[in-house]
Amino acid sequence: LLACDHVVLSDTAKHNIDTPAIVISTRGVLLKEITVHGPSRDLHSGQYGGTVANPANALAKIIASLHDDQKRVTIPGFYDGLRELSDKERKNLADIGPTDADLINNTGAPAPAGEEGYTTAERQAVRPTLDVNGIIGGYTGQGSATIIPAKASAKISMRLVAGQDPKTISKLFDEAITKTCPKGVRVEIEGHGGYPSYQAPTDSAEIQVAARALKACFRKPPVFTREGGTLPILPMFKEVLGADSLMFGFAMPDCNMHSPNEFFMVKDLEMGTQCIVRFIDEMGRLDT
Amino acid sequence: LLACDHVVLSDTAKHNIDTPAIVISTRGVLLKEITVHGPSRDLHSGQYGGTVANPANALAKIIASLHDDQKRVTIPGFYDGLRELSDKERKNLADIGPTDADLINNTGAPAPAGEEGYTTAERQAVRPTLDVNGIIGGYTGQGSATIIPAKASAKISMRLVAGQDPKTISKLFDEAITKTCPKGVRVEIEGHGGYPSYQAPTDSAEIQVAARALKACFRKPPVFTREGGTLPILPMFKEVLGADSLMFGFAMPDCNMHSPNEFFMVKDLEMGTQCIVRFIDEMGRLDT
Repeated sequence: LLACDHVVLSDTAKHNIDTPAIVISTRGVLLKEITVHGPSRDLHSGQYGGTVANPANALAKIIASLHDDQKRVTIPGFYDGLRELSDKERKNLADIGPTDADLINNTGAPAPAGEEGYTTAERQAVRPTLDVNGIIGGYTGQGSATIIPAKASAKISMRLVAGQDPKTISKLFDEAITKTCPKGVRVEIEGHGGYPSYQAPTDSAEIQVAARALKACFRKPPVFTREGGTLPILPMFKEVLGADSLMFGFAMPDCNMHSPNEFFMVKDLEMGTQCIVRFIDEMGRLDT
Repeated sequence: LLACDHVVLSDTAKHNIDTPAIVISTRGVLLKEITVHGPSRDLHSGQYGGTVANPANALAKIIASLHDDQKRVTIPGFYDGLRELSDKERKNLADIGPTDADLINNTGAPAPAGEEGYTTAERQAVRPTLDVNGIIGGYTGQGSATIIPAKASAKISMRLVAGQDPKTISKLFDEAITKTCPKGVRVEIEGHGGYPSYQAPTDSAEIQVAARALKACFRKPPVFTREGGTLPILPMFKEVLGADSLMFGFAMPDCNMHSPNEFFMVKDLEMGTQCIVRFIDEMGRLDT
């Protein structure tokens, strides 16, 4: 019923304010929520402190166990199937950035941090990750309440790269969490979905057309970038339509994506329109 | 301005439904809140995942580091000044309980857990503890939100025993947390107060009067128990008034103290009244 030759989408950013970008890969994602259950109600931390496992302490132990001192994910098998970067790929990523200074400037983080042996640009684009997105348990109001919480939970996202299948990683995650759960508490794992990474062909006629259209409008050739985020629709297009996706978008790289005050500039809307018109025009004249 | 000979208070429980208790010690408490700060706003976990330290992961690491595999608190100096229990004290605590079965029954916890080498009764009464009372950070609503939180925080209570000074332990805690804080994040520590443990004299004339009054009303001698919770007023009475405190109360041990559905039985109010009347009567006739 549905069919197409190519997919074009603009859910991505420029390389910087005046340089266009074509995104050639996105990371996948795997979403989990773990809840640690202990006593059947919140307990008085004096009356029972020291005698029962504390679900919030146990949750911290489980989360802490998921990275080693080199900030590698400790889930057995997590890195199986991953390919190390070639020198050329490393050089390309170094050229594209971001640099450590960019990172600090864009995030306000005190310092870069991450998997040892990789640069900020590599960590952001082609290495898998595991992050707590949210954590909650017990008393979280003003001041203090001397309780042992009945439960505590955390939402976790993993970013996946080429060679990692979300279904496999999901199973490995569940096994590792179950095994790490301390005595005296019970852990429950909920899945919130998972989507694979995507790698676009870099040598197609269509990507050359897109590059020419962007160069003509921006008066600068596009940079071929890799996206750390996930576009679940890309592997789905590939599977259902058999079509690869061309990604060139017009957002600012520091547009506070998924955060308060996300923005999109009006002049980028105009520039995007021009590029798309030029791209469609040339695609229509492409020998197929 | 204020003066008294003795302090009597009933903010404690019976030993069980028909056995009175006189509490001879309470644990102290030290209350802290730690907040781990990372990026200046919540970040997209795809765009920045892997490149900056995640405050929630870092908080988990800090909390996990506070106990070793034997469930001892790892803060250097935490156990300095503590005295090991004598065989007689261990036997007394074993007689008083609670047993492991009592604990599971009273809390709904899957199993007892705590410092290795000590029984449930010892862990509850005379060993110090460290518990997370509450933890929060990032997205905690329904489903998922793929963010790296800007900050995450935890409230922590420590129960202190004889030999532990809250001011000293506070300093040791702050030093340990600061030292354990991972690179790429910043930790802030807030104090919510601290109060020492209290040990009542066990051989005074007054405690004998109380024991006789309780025995006469309950038709059973009282058990001399140790309270895992904290009564900050006791060391304050001792310091300001120079007076020791006599503690015999009438609550049920499983009254859900500090939890929803806490209760106090009407017949315990009546029994308490009788005991206090008898106690005051005999105290008035005591040779002083």
